[in-house]
Amino acid sequence: MSGQLTVVGLGPGNLGQITPEALDAVREADDFFGYIPYLDRLSLQPHQRRHASDNREELSRAQAALTMAAAGGKVCVVSGGDPGVFAMAAAVCEAIENGPADWRSIDFRVVPGVTAMLAVAAKAGAPLGHDFCAISLSDNLKPWSLIEKRLVLAAEAGFVMAFYNPVSKARPHQLATAFDVLRAHLPGTVPVIFGRAAGRADERMRVVPLADARSDMADMATCIIVGSVETRLIDRPGAEPLVYSPRSSIRES
Amino acid sequence: MSGQLTVVGLGPGNLGQITPEALDAVREADDFFGYIPYLDRLSLQPHQRRHASDNREELSRAQAALTMAAAGGKVCVVSGGDPGVFAMAAAVCEAIENGPADWRSIDFRVVPGVTAMLAVAAKAGAPLGHDFCAISLSDNLKPWSLIEKRLVLAAEAGFVMAFYNPVSKARPHQLATAFDVLRAHLPGTVPVIFGRAAGRADERMRVVPLADARSDMADMATCIIVGSVETRLIDRPGAEPLVYSPRSSIRES
Repeated sequence: MSGQLTVVGLGPGNLGQITPEALDAVREADDFFGYIPYLDRLSLQPHQRRHASDNREELSRAQAALTMAAAGGKVCVVSGGDPGVFAMAAAVCEAIENGPADWRSIDFRVVPGVTAMLAVAAKAGAPLGHDFCAISLSDNLKPWSLIEKRLVLAAEAGFVMAFYNPVSKARPHQLATAFDVLRAHLPGTVPVIFGRAAGRADERMRVVPLADARSDMADMATCIIVGSVETRLIDRPGAEPLVYSPRSSIRES
Repeated sequence: MSGQLTVVGLGPGNLGQITPEALDAVREADDFFGYIPYLDRLSLQPHQRRHASDNREELSRAQAALTMAAAGGKVCVVSGGDPGVFAMAAAVCEAIENGPADWRSIDFRVVPGVTAMLAVAAKAGAPLGHDFCAISLSDNLKPWSLIEKRLVLAAEAGFVMAFYNPVSKARPHQLATAFDVLRAHLPGTVPVIFGRAAGRADERMRVVPLADARSDMADMATCIIVGSVETRLIDRPGAEPLVYSPRSSIRES
């Protein structure tokens, strides 16, 4: 007897940014799988059970959740932001593809959320106002050479870039290298936004030119947006400058 | 005396996908500017006023909203999806930059939302599970040659691609050309998702291989996701196949 598995995005961390659809999905489930800080955001009922796991355990977490759903459970896997952007939805799909056949009969659903780059962009103005890309800087699951190749091609294409997973204790040097790669392909004046914990109490926003961007300006909770050559700053009296990318593109890159 | 202007994202169109933060911003405003179908989604109070305008009038709409805010109004500009992704936030920033100096003193805020590609991806599985880009196929504000260049570089980078503004009455041929460009750079087996009105009553999802993708499968309300060479299909009994992009990348493109 097959149950259900819903992968839910809780948004950037602010209660006001969780959708009603996500809250409904949480209300309807009995068992919750996720990284501890995401589970900590939920206000669960007494009958609802937490199955917390550490970061970097995405695949085994997905398998445990699917096993329980296949046995008839009403299971929820929680992600921060949007579960489809560098988060749990792909890990669950990967587990379904490689798992027992009955996992394909589970009532599987993904509930979208506000992903970090959208929250950071909103705080800064409209830096994602034109064509853009999102890149994970983690080389746990792909070679660093591929990341560098994508950075160079994205700069050549004139994409604004959002970086997820910019640094971690296991990967202290990648972000500095990424900035060096970009400095060889973009003007040093291009604005770089460091958006930490956007929408949360410990939010911290910072905008610097690419020439001055350093890896110690980011931590694991930071989403970074690197402007294109067309991204602009608007100075404002008594407020941080607005950063935006115009809707029109004239320059070829 | 300066008032306030909030640009609000209403999400893909389903009431369950509007954030509480967006609803609060709507409650606090007196005057609402936007494209008619987005204004039609609001349940306004008797004292709240609608200032509807047609599509393609983004800049004049932004200027009208800023003029009212600069005079002390509590103004809301509404967008579908996320206002920072091919929507009103960039148009308002552009108007601020080029407008009178006192527009820079307006209390300006952007409230993020669930953008179309996230809702479409959630319905399909996890096609944006790895590095991806978002491209507007409208050549109203940029040359078509630049769009073709970006398509080719995105294919070379191995990005999954989300297309906004894929077709309109004024631009019937661009999407077919875009598919032709991609067929020269990607295998015909790459899955293409046509997600129309995701989350709404008239939702329609369709997945075809790139070899079979045609422009008449999309309309103005469609967001298209083109997989990378690594994007996979999972067949399921009695349900549409899941589409997902694995978290790991092995192939270079």
